[in-house]
Amino acid sequence: MPLWKVYHPAGAYTPEDKQAFAETMTEIYARFMPRFYVNVLFHEVDENTLYFGGKSRNNFVRITMAHIARDFSSEEGSRRFIDAVNKLIAPWVKDRGFDWEFHIDETPFDLWSIQGFYPPREGTPDEARWIAENKPSPRTHD
Amino acid sequence: MPLWKVYHPAGAYTPEDKQAFAETMTEIYARFMPRFYVNVLFHEVDENTLYFGGKSRNNFVRITMAHIARDFSSEEGSRRFIDAVNKLIAPWVKDRGFDWEFHIDETPFDLWSIQGFYPPREGTPDEARWIAENKPSPRTHD
Amino acid sequence: MPLWKVYHPAGAYTPEDKQAFAETMTEIYARFMPRFYVNVLFHEVDENTLYFGGKSRNNFVRITMAHIARDFSSEEGSRRFIDAVNKLIAPWVKDRGFDWEFHIDETPFDLWSIQGFYPPREGTPDEARWIAENKPSPRTHD
Repeated sequence: MPLWKVYHPAGAYTPEDKQAFAETMTEIYARFMPRFYVNVLFHEVDENTLYFGGKSRNNFVRITMAHIARDFSSEEGSRRFIDAVNKLIAPWVKDRGFDWEFHIDETPFDLWSIQGFYPPREGTPDEARWIAENKPSPRTHD
Repeated sequence: MPLWKVYHPAGAYTPEDKQAFAETMTEIYARFMPRFYVNVLFHEVDENTLYFGGKSRNNFVRITMAHIARDFSSEEGSRRFIDAVNKLIAPWVKDRGFDWEFHIDETPFDLWSIQGFYPPREGTPDEARWIAENKPSPRTHD
Repeated sequence: MPLWKVYHPAGAYTPEDKQAFAETMTEIYARFMPRFYVNVLFHEVDENTLYFGGKSRNNFVRITMAHIARDFSSEEGSRRFIDAVNKLIAPWVKDRGFDWEFHIDETPFDLWSIQGFYPPREGTPDEARWIAENKPSPRTHD
């Protein structure tokens, strides 16, 4: 579900950095959905490629997130999530002297398919099985 | 309208593969909209760039689709489409041993422009002309 | 807020071209929001990477825009904006012989964070300060 795209300066992260970042982000979601739902894609940004207010920036991490499996039902919920993300990503952004920005889009649950299957609805036995097995399998409910 | 982004392992596809993939996807849409609406963008994903559940994956094809020209009006309609996509993309994913996932977002029709023109509304004579000529031209209706 | 992604043929733009493009786009938004909100990311598109209607195209500029800070409240407003964009981008697309297409998505204001802060709501003193200082600072309203 969540698809994170992390636009970062070329060379900013080693493979170990990226894995640790992706693992940390996975933990945010893994309390309530299968771990394998969490997709993190890193994009290196070369010089003269990313502009803010018309100025080229090379010390900026811009993250976009598509949320598919869950929508926030309240602003309290989204604030708790966003504040947690800001704290958890600090080692890869703030603590390294990068500026950062992110935004989340919410896309339709029914327009999503993994490995030919429709992901299970929240709170179903199918979802419990996907979480336990950490892999997709046929959905048995409507 | 549909903008497909296909994130695939580096070297997975030849130019001939990509063209065949894009042509096949175009057929899905061409029954009811101009062929040139169908944009397919391929992104090579290098090692240590795409993570699922905190693990790097090199045998995964992740597709995102933005639908602009049409929204699904029912879950039956979206399921028919998604099932057709899963079948049609099999030669480039399942049959090559890649795992795969995709999701669709729907974006506002009125916030779309091609070559300086507003694309015609569904079922109009303007749309019929765009389909017949397979190129944009001035829209004559509101 | 606005995040523009500009998919352009490899080598089409020099760093000076890109900066001028990003500055021009920034002007569109700077009348009513902080300049630094305007993110423009350029993506070089290699041959055999972008397909339209199943055909590879190398003379095409495809732009996507995510609008976060403001939604269009009327079709008149969106048309005025889109017509202005088509005119302003002409030096980088039409005048160079490229074909072009763009679409805008609108994403939720509350799901957005810059430098750990929630961007201020429209018309607030906080927003006036962000515009004047052209940098983020703590938001003092709900």
